[in-house]
Amino acid sequence: MSIRIQKTFEALFALEEIRGIFRSSLPTGLTVEEEAALARQIDALKSIVADLEAGTGVPKVTKIAGTLDIRTREEEGINIHPIQAAGRLTTEARKAIIAYGDGYSSCDFCRKPFRLDKITRPGIAEFHADLAKWLNMDHARVIPGARRGFQAVTNTLVEKGDTVIVSALAHYTEFLAVENAGGIVKEVPLNAGNIVTADATAQKIEEVKRETGKLPALVMIDHYDYQFANEHEIGGIGKVAHQYDIPFLYNGAYTVGIQPVDGKKFGADFVVGSGHKSMASVAPSGVLATTEEWAPKALRTTSMVGDLTKRKFGIKEVELLGCTLMGGTLLSMIASFPTVKERTLHWDEEVKKSNFFIDNLLRITGSRVLSEYPRKHTLTKVDTTGSFDTVAKTHKRRGFFFSDELSSKGIVGEFAGATRTWKLNTYGLTWEQVKYLSDVFTGIAEKHELPVESK
Amino acid sequence: MSIRIQKTFEALFALEEIRGIFRSSLPTGLTVEEEAALARQIDALKSIVADLEAGTGVPKVTKIAGTLDIRTREEEGINIHPIQAAGRLTTEARKAIIAYGDGYSSCDFCRKPFRLDKITRPGIAEFHADLAKWLNMDHARVIPGARRGFQAVTNTLVEKGDTVIVSALAHYTEFLAVENAGGIVKEVPLNAGNIVTADATAQKIEEVKRETGKLPALVMIDHYDYQFANEHEIGGIGKVAHQYDIPFLYNGAYTVGIQPVDGKKFGADFVVGSGHKSMASVAPSGVLATTEEWAPKALRTTSMVGDLTKRKFGIKEVELLGCTLMGGTLLSMIASFPTVKERTLHWDEEVKKSNFFIDNLLRITGSRVLSEYPRKHTLTKVDTTGSFDTVAKTHKRRGFFFSDELSSKGIVGEFAGATRTWKLNTYGLTWEQVKYLSDVFTGIAEKHELPVESK
Repeated sequence: MSIRIQKTFEALFALEEIRGIFRSSLPTGLTVEEEAALARQIDALKSIVADLEAGTGVPKVTKIAGTLDIRTREEEGINIHPIQAAGRLTTEARKAIIAYGDGYSSCDFCRKPFRLDKITRPGIAEFHADLAKWLNMDHARVIPGARRGFQAVTNTLVEKGDTVIVSALAHYTEFLAVENAGGIVKEVPLNAGNIVTADATAQKIEEVKRETGKLPALVMIDHYDYQFANEHEIGGIGKVAHQYDIPFLYNGAYTVGIQPVDGKKFGADFVVGSGHKSMASVAPSGVLATTEEWAPKALRTTSMVGDLTKRKFGIKEVELLGCTLMGGTLLSMIASFPTVKERTLHWDEEVKKSNFFIDNLLRITGSRVLSEYPRKHTLTKVDTTGSFDTVAKTHKRRGFFFSDELSSKGIVGEFAGATRTWKLNTYGLTWEQVKYLSDVFTGIAEKHELPVESK
Repeated sequence: MSIRIQKTFEALFALEEIRGIFRSSLPTGLTVEEEAALARQIDALKSIVADLEAGTGVPKVTKIAGTLDIRTREEEGINIHPIQAAGRLTTEARKAIIAYGDGYSSCDFCRKPFRLDKITRPGIAEFHADLAKWLNMDHARVIPGARRGFQAVTNTLVEKGDTVIVSALAHYTEFLAVENAGGIVKEVPLNAGNIVTADATAQKIEEVKRETGKLPALVMIDHYDYQFANEHEIGGIGKVAHQYDIPFLYNGAYTVGIQPVDGKKFGADFVVGSGHKSMASVAPSGVLATTEEWAPKALRTTSMVGDLTKRKFGIKEVELLGCTLMGGTLLSMIASFPTVKERTLHWDEEVKKSNFFIDNLLRITGSRVLSEYPRKHTLTKVDTTGSFDTVAKTHKRRGFFFSDELSSKGIVGEFAGATRTWKLNTYGLTWEQVKYLSDVFTGIAEKHELPVESK
C-alpha cells in the first residue's frame, strides 16, 4: 500500500480516537487526564500528518477492531467491479457518515407525526420531495435496498398464485420478491439481440391470460439488466402494461442515480432504485417512488388496532414497516444527492468512456462483447475466451495470471481467475483512468503475444 | 460548539478531501497538479490540526453537502435520548465505516456460493457463526433492522387471519409485521406492575383458542418493552408458548447488545436484535437468530424457477431477499462486536448507574418513575408532572424552559418541551457523566425552587 494512503487512514483513525475522548468527557470540559490523552493523540496525529506529507514512515495500524483490513481499493487502484462502481461514496457522503454514523442519528429532532420522511432537521422531508420530483413521480420513500422496494410492491399487489411478468434477465431479487409474496414469475423472452421488447411482453401477458384465465398482477422490468446491461424497451413495455391495465414497476437499479429517469415518461407506477448500487450511498439503501394512484395502496398506513389497548399507529406505512433508514445510510444518500443529480446529466460522457474502453478491448483479437454494442451503459459483459483465456490455458497460474497482471497495474474488481465471460464497469472513472485502463489491457495482451489491432 | 470539536471534524473532512485526490488519480501516482492539490490540502489540514491543538480558530466548514449540519451532540454533550444511547458507534465502528462506507464494500471477495453470510474476507462468515453462538442459537443472519426480523418470521408463519400474541406494550413494528403478513395481533394484558406474565400469556392463548378455534401462529414478546423498559416474564412466556407448541419470538431490541442473551434458556425459536438500537451499529441493521428446527422454514432458500430460462437461485433465502447488509452497516456491526460482547458483561454496572440517576431524580419532590423500580434497565419512563411541570406551568417558555436548562448544561436528547411523562436512557455514560447528569437535574430543581430531599 502507498504509505501516503496508509497515513491518510491512520490520521482519520487518530481523529476518531480524539472524538472518543470528547465523547466520554463532561460538557464542562476535559479533565487533566483527558487533556493529557488528547495531547498525546494530537502528537500522534501530527506525526502521522508529517509522514503523510513526506511520504515516510511505516504502517502502524493495519487492522480495525483487530480483524478488519483497511479497505483501500478505491484509493490504491482503479476498481472495475461490475456492481461497486456507482455505489462508491462521494466525498460529501463520506463526510456525512463520519458525522451521522451513530445508530439513530437521523432522529434528533423527530417530532409528531413521528415518521422518518416527515423529519425536517436534517432536511429529510425535503429530500423525499426532491427525490419524487427528480424521478418525476408523486411520492418517494427510502428503503433498505431495491429488493425491499420490489417486496413492498409484490406484497401489495400479488396474491397467492398470481403471476408477475419479469424479464428473462430478471435479477434474482425480483424472483425472491415474487416468491415472498406467494406469486409466480413468468419470464418475457429476449429477442436475438438479448433485448426485452414491448411486443414480447404483450405476447407473454396474453400467454399468461390464456393459461391461467387471469391477467398478471404486475409487470416488473429492468430498464437495463444486470447481466448485459442492455437497454430494454422500457417505454413500450410500460405502455403495454397499461393497455392491459396491469401496474408497471420500473426497475432502475442500473439507472436511478447515474442517468436521468423520468418515471411518468416510462409509464411507471413504481420506480425502484438502489442507493448502494447507483446512488453513491451506504448499503442497504434505495428508493421506491410511486404515483398518486398507487400511493394509497403501496404506501398504505396501518389499520391494525390492539384488541386490548385499542392502540393504533395510524401514520406508519405497513409495507415499509414504519421508518426505514434512520441514520448513516439515509444521510449518505442525502449528502451524495446533489452530486448524483448532477452526474446523471453527464451520462453520455460515461457511455463514451465505456465505449472507448470496449473499443480498445476489441482491438485485442479474439475478444468479444456479449452486451449490446456500441454500449449504452458502463456495465458490460465481455468474452475473452478467444484472447486472455488462450493464455490462461497454458499459464501455470491459469486464469489468475490475468488477475495478477491487472493487480500489478493497480486494476481491481475483475472476477479473480475469470478469463472467459465476465463483467466490468467503467462508471465514474476519469478519462485518464479509462485511458490507463485501456492501455493496461492492451499491454497485457501484447506482453502475452496476443495480436492487438492498431488504432 | 467547542472549537476543538469543530476542528476535529474539519480535520476529518480535510482527510476525506485528500482521499478524494487519491481516488481520482492513476495507480501510477499523482500528477503534478494532483501533487499540488494534495500539498494544499495537507497545508490546510496542518493548520486545522494546529487550531485543534491550540483551541484556536474559527469554524470554516459548517455544512456537509451544502445542507447538513455537522452532528456533534455526542461530542458536545451528554445524550440521554431514549433510543439513541446504545446505538452510538464505538470508535472501532467509526473507523470501519470510514474504510467500508462505499456501497457494496463487503463484496470485494464474494465468491461462490455468492451469499453475504458466506463471505470469508472480511470475516463475515465467522461473524455470523459468532453471533449465533453468542446468542446461544444455531443460526444467525444480519437484517436491516429488528422489524425486518419480525417480518421474516411473520411472513413465514402467519397465514391470512391467523393471530399473533404480542404484549400490550408491543412496539408498533410488531403490529406492522403481523399486519404485513395478513395476521391479527392479540395483546397480552399487563399486571398491576405493567409486566407481561407467563400466566397472562397462557390465558390469552386460551382466549384466542376459544374465540377462533385455533391456536395463535406465533408468540412474539419483548424481553424489555419500549415504553417502560420493564422486564417481562420472558422465560416463563417461552415455556408457555412451547407448552402450546407455538413458536416463540424473543424480541431483544432492548437487550441484544447491552446485556447477555441466551436464546435457548428463554426457549426462543427466534431471537431478534437491533443493530442501531443496541449494538452500536449504523442503521438499519440487526440480527435474526433461530434454531436448527426453524432455520429450514424461516431461512428457506428459493424454490422459484424461471418458466422460460429455468433459472434457479437456490442458495438465496426468500425471507431475507438474498443478501441484506452489503456494506457499512454490517462492517460497523462487526467492528463494534468485540466491544459489544464485552459490554454486555457489565450490564449490572449500567443498571447501577441508571438507578443512581433515578434515585437522584426522585429526590426532587413530586418526581415519579413510571417504569418498574428499582430499575433493571437504563431506559426509564419518568413523570415530572409534580416537579418540573409545575415550573413549566408559569414559565414564559413553558416546557421548553426545561430543555433550555438542560442544553445550557450540555444535556441533550430529552423530548424538547416535555415536562410531564417522558423517557430517557443513561446507557453507556461514564460514572462521571451520570453524576454530572444527576447534579444538573437537582440543580435545575433548586434553581427553580423545587424541593430537593437531601441525600
